[in-house]
This record gives sequence, structure tokens and C-alpha cells, in this order.
Amino acid sequence: MAMSTPAFGPAPEGCLASEVLNRIGDKWSVYAIACLGGGTLRFSELRRQIDGISQRMLTATLRALERDGLVTRTMYPEIPPRVEYALTPLGKSLLDVVGTLIAWSETHTADIDRARTDYDQRSR
Amino acid sequence: MAMSTPAFGPAPEGCLASEVLNRIGDKWSVYAIACLGGGTLRFSELRRQIDGISQRMLTATLRALERDGLVTRTMYPEIPPRVEYALTPLGKSLLDVVGTLIAWSETHTADIDRARTDYDQRSR
Repeated sequence: MAMSTPAFGPAPEGCLASEVLNRIGDKWSVYAIACLGGGTLRFSELRRQIDGISQRMLTATLRALERDGLVTRTMYPEIPPRVEYALTPLGKSLLDVVGTLIAWSETHTADIDRARTDYDQRSR
Repeated sequence: MAMSTPAFGPAPEGCLASEVLNRIGDKWSVYAIACLGGGTLRFSELRRQIDGISQRMLTATLRALERDGLVTRTMYPEIPPRVEYALTPLGKSLLDVVGTLIAWSETHTADIDRARTDYDQRSR
């Protein structure tokens, strides 16, 4: 997992402004992929599990993930119709990356909280 | 780095809607941290290296990263004043995570491009 530091150093064409990174850096995409890591889910289940996402934003996020080949959408012609979402193999390969993001967040939440408190006190 | 899949599964309180994840999922923060992985940089150098970022957005991003304890800002009282940014130890610990994001992006850009082309043709 470790990459040597120079890999992120200055490059003539700028640092890695790739559209792919934009996609996987999007917080709603991270949440959706993390949730689907536990297995196939219906739209309503995803909506319930992703704190604060609107129906419209979840629709847009899932469509973008489907377009990127990270998520499949399967519709079952029932009444009412059932729609299920799952990770593709490509989406599953992203799960480890998402996992390191989440693990880092959980490990360092207290550090960041402390830094924020200090910063806000200095800025008063 | 690998985490078992169930770690991302459904949880009663929703999937990991942490504010910390919002911060490190932000694309401009990812770019700034990656650029600073190569060493200390001045504002103007960062601006040049992060494709498409405005002066205002870079200012806001760096201030948020400083508040979170990820970046230090050092001002040298010269004329004109010189301001340098660097990663803190906490910021450096995030560099590996950012590295996996970047590595994944670079490895899978072609897969995603292909998926998008297929999707767009199906949607016509």
C-alpha cells in the first residue's frame, strides 16, 4: 500500500487532476460503495443507510457509478418493481481503497477534533 | 490494507457518515495533500500544480486542512511575504491513503473509460 513520497511530487502537467479521482473522491460515491460492500441493496435500503443523502442525489450518484462500471442495477419486473444495486468486480476492487479511507477516518477522528478545537481557540 | 467486506455492511446508524470522511473525500483536499507529499510548497506553486483550482478555493482548502491539523502554514516576513505550506505528521499519515486512491485511479482509468463508452451507447 505504501507509495514512495516522490510519486506525489510536482509534475509539469499538474498533480493528478484526473476525472476518475474526482469520481472516487466524491463523498456520496464513497458512501454508496462502502454500503454495497456488504452486499446487494435496494434503493430504499441505500437511502436509509447513507446519512443525509437526498433521493435525487442518490439517484444521480448510482447512475454515475453504473456508468463508470462500478455498480450494476438490476430491475425485477414485480409490482411494485424491485431495483437492486450491487458492486461489479471493478467496484469491488475499489472497496479496499474505500476501506483505507474509512479506517484512516476512524483512527484519526479524535486527532482532527483536537486540531479543530486548538485552531478555533487560536483564531478567536 | 485489506479490510474484510462485512466491515462496510449495513449498520443501524447508517454507513460511516463521518465529517472526517467528508474532508478527506474532498477532491481539492486530495490534490493538495498529494502535492504537498513531495515537500513544502508556496501558495503559488500549489496553485500552479492543482489543475483547475481557483485562488479562492485553494485558500479555503488550505485553511480547512490547517484547521484539521493536516497542513501547517508558515509565513516568512519578507517583502513580498512568503507563505509556505507543509504536511504535518497527521497529514503525512494520510498520504498513504491518498496514494492508494491515486494508484487505483491510474490503474483503472481505461476500464472506466470503456464502461462509460458502453453505457453511453446503450443509453442512446
